[in-house]
Amino acid sequence: MTTSEILKNAKAAKTFAALMSSEQKNSALINMAVAIEGDIPLILKANAEDVKNAQGSISAVMLDRLRLDEERILAMASGLREVAKLPDPVGNVLEDIVRPNGLKIKRVSVPFGVVAIIYESRPNVTADAAALALKSGNVCVLRIGKEAFCSARAIVAAMKKGLKKAGISKSLINLIEDTSRESSYELMKAVGYVDLLIPRGGKNLISSCVENAKVPCIQTGTGICHVYVDGSADLNKALTIIENAKCSRPSVCNAMEVCLVHSDIAVEFLPALYDKLTKGRANPVQFLLDVKSAEILGQRKFCNSASSDDFDTEFLDYILAVKIVDDVKSAVNHISEHSTGHSDCIITEDVKNAEFFKRSVDSAVVYVNASTRFTDGGEFGFGCEMGISTQKLHARGPMGLRELTTYKYVVDGNWQIR
Amino acid sequence: MTTSEILKNAKAAKTFAALMSSEQKNSALINMAVAIEGDIPLILKANAEDVKNAQGSISAVMLDRLRLDEERILAMASGLREVAKLPDPVGNVLEDIVRPNGLKIKRVSVPFGVVAIIYESRPNVTADAAALALKSGNVCVLRIGKEAFCSARAIVAAMKKGLKKAGISKSLINLIEDTSRESSYELMKAVGYVDLLIPRGGKNLISSCVENAKVPCIQTGTGICHVYVDGSADLNKALTIIENAKCSRPSVCNAMEVCLVHSDIAVEFLPALYDKLTKGRANPVQFLLDVKSAEILGQRKFCNSASSDDFDTEFLDYILAVKIVDDVKSAVNHISEHSTGHSDCIITEDVKNAEFFKRSVDSAVVYVNASTRFTDGGEFGFGCEMGISTQKLHARGPMGLRELTTYKYVVDGNWQIR
Repeated sequence: MTTSEILKNAKAAKTFAALMSSEQKNSALINMAVAIEGDIPLILKANAEDVKNAQGSISAVMLDRLRLDEERILAMASGLREVAKLPDPVGNVLEDIVRPNGLKIKRVSVPFGVVAIIYESRPNVTADAAALALKSGNVCVLRIGKEAFCSARAIVAAMKKGLKKAGISKSLINLIEDTSRESSYELMKAVGYVDLLIPRGGKNLISSCVENAKVPCIQTGTGICHVYVDGSADLNKALTIIENAKCSRPSVCNAMEVCLVHSDIAVEFLPALYDKLTKGRANPVQFLLDVKSAEILGQRKFCNSASSDDFDTEFLDYILAVKIVDDVKSAVNHISEHSTGHSDCIITEDVKNAEFFKRSVDSAVVYVNASTRFTDGGEFGFGCEMGISTQKLHARGPMGLRELTTYKYVVDGNWQIR
Repeated sequence: MTTSEILKNAKAAKTFAALMSSEQKNSALINMAVAIEGDIPLILKANAEDVKNAQGSISAVMLDRLRLDEERILAMASGLREVAKLPDPVGNVLEDIVRPNGLKIKRVSVPFGVVAIIYESRPNVTADAAALALKSGNVCVLRIGKEAFCSARAIVAAMKKGLKKAGISKSLINLIEDTSRESSYELMKAVGYVDLLIPRGGKNLISSCVENAKVPCIQTGTGICHVYVDGSADLNKALTIIENAKCSRPSVCNAMEVCLVHSDIAVEFLPALYDKLTKGRANPVQFLLDVKSAEILGQRKFCNSASSDDFDTEFLDYILAVKIVDDVKSAVNHISEHSTGHSDCIITEDVKNAEFFKRSVDSAVVYVNASTRFTDGGEFGFGCEMGISTQKLHARGPMGLRELTTYKYVVDGNWQIR
């Protein structure tokens, strides 16, 4: 089917999707899980084809993300079952107003309608995104990178079997077949068809969506996350948090990229930080230092001068930019200028500085004395995640099922006129 | 100042605006009201200049909207005082989560930052928009149509006097001085400077924003509102509601434009509706009829055949498009296809049909047995209104102070790592 045919089908399925009962949705999700489990051989075969075609043309990291095995497929299926257990986000009365004239106004959560997700070569996002869209009463239109298309097609085919078994329209889950760039642009411009566009992927994908989208779009992902070590910080605890924020999984958006250090403690703290993040490590962290911190860490191995770009770069790697600041205010100013508004942290024992930081830093998640790695739907207790919003319209931070709904006002009158 | 200088100043004022106390904001609003009252002669003089320049080049309706008198200026000032009385929408804890690992996560309402409002030649919007932005902790950047620029400049000058008197940065309220189209485009594309763009005005302005905006934008306004008269409707009550929805103020977005009538009652109802909306009226309503309703109303005065466009037109005038449908399902289908998602109403005595309509119509406000004219921040009890959102991202329907805020997560940790 062409992209525009798929969009027409998706639009036509909106009302059905919005009116599904919780039981219907959960039965669909469980049937989808069963069908995926039943189709493991087919999915593996399709994935092997993708991997074969991609070899040589994508990086090892990308290839690893692309590759499925039985365990990963079973994890997708169990993800669908988890979503079935979550509360239904649709039909909640968010506000209940009775006006003096007797009008009864209810603000009720409703699905967006058609949610399009553009993502790269992670086949497992196919099942995740479809499950969250379905549970939130939305029709999904999935557009995966060409490297992973065969895998996604096999996963979607399995999920459609599950929908059929549950007696639910197959048009609720749609995979764009055109893997050229053209189809992404078509989704970005599908005014009247796509109610919400969520790009999930790297910087280029996100900025292409911001640049080209005419449909409502939520920016996700890019995280230049800062940890500021205040003059009053407990330095040992600071080391533990930074090690976790930087090294536990450097390739993800909630990993720390920049360390700001108060000048009062820099001479004591920086060498300790250097030791912690380099000594005896399989992946020693590369330090990119501003002038003042370079004076302290000097000629050590793994240390280089930071270029001006380094404070505006999401490394997604074992690299840390370091800058010395004179106080919490300077730290906040640096963050205001360089943060992507994802997650930023202060490490401090000073309540006033903590308060100032929490109030002044304008990011989706602001931490005091905890690792930035907690910015995640699961860690926040949402039970799932569609991505991390780094913009301010509608949703900010981890997006769960609630963030995939909007609301409408339902007004019951008794012949009121104005 | 150039537009880009104004944007830089506005951005620099964001943190101050976000951290203002309720007392500071309210004192600013009251001082602004006093200053506007004190500047009545200056504002009237500026407005007279605008009116003189605009005469002949804009319609009588537009000229009326442009014209200020003492009463209208006093109404602006009292509007500011009203906003001062409303609860502060910033700093509310919307959600309070304690995780098993001890992380304390609070979801807190915060301002967007810089809110840009592009509007046409209604000078009073200047004071309204500035007041709502200020109370919600936002810096505003106002861009008014060139016909009303002198009036807006005088109003902003007065408000800045008020800010100064309250000891608050004048950069919180900004008026774009460049009245060429270029400045609107600059605002639409000011990524990193404008956190939220709200166009308030006609169809062309809104669609230009949808087409060109790279910054987050909320569509407001266009209302092709439907009233469906069900077979079970109390016809006398239906007449009263339709008269109100169509005739009480046809130039506004919540006025009714299309009447859908169940075929069972059309022969009885349509002649009565015709009489109600035409006989003895200073402004008789023009009927634009589909084939079936034309068969009933026939050769009557003020009746014409509807063209296919007429069911997709916001008339904003004493004009009503009429179509006969076979049941509530057909009515919902017509609305799905032609509504702008603003306000749609069913008139019925049948609870099942009412439920079906409420669940199926995907508009910002769905009414049962009440006039669409109630879609308004004041009528909903918000105490104010920045516009009516007809899109689904972030805000839907009347936008009050709450809708001018977003949220952030503030996480208090105790050295948690992941």
